[in-house]
Amino acid sequence: MVSLQEIIDSHGRIEKLVHRTPILTNLGLNELIGAQIYCKCENFQKTGAFKFRGASNAVELLSEKELARGVATASSGNHGAALAKAVTRKNGNVTVVMPNNSSLKKVDNVRRNGGEIIWCEPFQESREKVLNDFVRNTGAVVIHPYNDERIIAGQGTAALEFLQDCSDLDVIITPLSGGGLLSGTLCAVKNMKPEIMVYGAEPEEADDAFRSLSAGERLGNETTNTICDGLRAQIGMINFPIIQKLVDGIITLSEMEIILSMKMVFERMKIVIEPSSSIVLAAALKNKKEFSGKNVGLIFSGGNIDCDDLPW
Amino acid sequence: MVSLQEIIDSHGRIEKLVHRTPILTNLGLNELIGAQIYCKCENFQKTGAFKFRGASNAVELLSEKELARGVATASSGNHGAALAKAVTRKNGNVTVVMPNNSSLKKVDNVRRNGGEIIWCEPFQESREKVLNDFVRNTGAVVIHPYNDERIIAGQGTAALEFLQDCSDLDVIITPLSGGGLLSGTLCAVKNMKPEIMVYGAEPEEADDAFRSLSAGERLGNETTNTICDGLRAQIGMINFPIIQKLVDGIITLSEMEIILSMKMVFERMKIVIEPSSSIVLAAALKNKKEFSGKNVGLIFSGGNIDCDDLPW
Repeated sequence: MVSLQEIIDSHGRIEKLVHRTPILTNLGLNELIGAQIYCKCENFQKTGAFKFRGASNAVELLSEKELARGVATASSGNHGAALAKAVTRKNGNVTVVMPNNSSLKKVDNVRRNGGEIIWCEPFQESREKVLNDFVRNTGAVVIHPYNDERIIAGQGTAALEFLQDCSDLDVIITPLSGGGLLSGTLCAVKNMKPEIMVYGAEPEEADDAFRSLSAGERLGNETTNTICDGLRAQIGMINFPIIQKLVDGIITLSEMEIILSMKMVFERMKIVIEPSSSIVLAAALKNKKEFSGKNVGLIFSGGNIDCDDLPW
Repeated sequence: MVSLQEIIDSHGRIEKLVHRTPILTNLGLNELIGAQIYCKCENFQKTGAFKFRGASNAVELLSEKELARGVATASSGNHGAALAKAVTRKNGNVTVVMPNNSSLKKVDNVRRNGGEIIWCEPFQESREKVLNDFVRNTGAVVIHPYNDERIIAGQGTAALEFLQDCSDLDVIITPLSGGGLLSGTLCAVKNMKPEIMVYGAEPEEADDAFRSLSAGERLGNETTNTICDGLRAQIGMINFPIIQKLVDGIITLSEMEIILSMKMVFERMKIVIEPSSSIVLAAALKNKKEFSGKNVGLIFSGGNIDCDDLPW
């Protein structure tokens, strides 16, 4: 569990490094859902995703000695780019183990921010093996994308700002993959305003968290055949018990629901978000009866898309 | 010529009806151009384009008697939707003459805002004939998309806000088609801060304004074969002399330059703009030597795209 104080301290540590992202509203979406929708736009965050919050917090906490050893991680892209920016800012070296089916733009984004890439096969065992081999050979410090309390505390700062800037939320929905953003959000929200309902949104095609909660134990993904390239990871060991204890529910969405919500954001809100973000709008649309008349906060987690490979 | 006072009065008339759109910046674009770029985001304006400013001003100036006759216009889409919203807000009726090759989303946008559509062929003579016939039969009041001083004054309010919110601009670039936005911008800027250089950006494939300025007389388009569906009109009779007198230059852009700049905005800025908007970024990129080290203001005119028909 991460305390509210740790999230507040984390915010103090990173607030000059990250953007305080805007909260956007849209009358058309409000009418469609029958609720007041507030969107915390982490797609406008540096490196294009909320991941820069956690990465910055973890890197700020490294000693000079640790930084000098080099930093490594395994990431499908957004955490890798965020970590690269956070580490190169301090003149350190970063290596990112990426699956060989990663989106081109995410690969570019890691490179542009100064990260070195090592490829792995697109499944968990290969990721871990390649990363472990690299660490054994180099002595690099690993900063995991989500299974790390420094990361959870950093990701929780998005919800902290959300509640500071938007005082009357009834519901918050975040995307859910490894669980860094959702567990950070829960540690912030349930300690600040426990009456706010917090949900995770997960693709049907990578629904390990939904099934894990039903089973009462951490299960793997049966498929990761989703366009949400940011939501293919398995829920983390540290993240799972936090989510299990505090979350109000997991909403699973079909690929079609995710794609339609992404188009809706492009066409109505005129902002670019990735499918791993628009899933939270899909969750609000699917449950509009339940959310009717409420103030619903959506965390749009990122906006790193490949314009040449849009999912419609 | 429209006076600064008329633009200020227009702003007083419409400021509660329109969004004061944000001005966004992007470090990546600054580095790429070697200048400080400020983007006035009219893609976030109501109805998705700056056109709602001029339409609101013109409609606010109608008498009740005029409004009761119904309002009509010919428009490829953005002015039509804007006029529809401005008129239906006051419980009037609006008819929009649209070319039969209009983008589906722009047709939707007109209808969603309450406009009736009559189709015409996609060239100037057909537009005018269909509109004139309709007006003869119904007595409707015409509000032209750009060749109208009320419209010019309304469009000038975007530049007025831009200069109020961003005090140190050296350059402003607007898209150029009929000339409503550019002439309004010139009437505002050249009366407030004449030292600011103001440019229009026009597709090579619809370059009537560029050729008209060279010839010293208003010429027609030789082609309108451009993806910029908002920039296919001929420069207006009222707009041309204003632009001729005050503009610092017209920058023409190839289709490829326009498409690349549109992708760049999606990928870097994470906002949705139409090609008719991104042309101003293309103009800044093309002239980056000239703009080096300057504070360059771009007016992103609109964001109404058809996601199923992106130009790349």
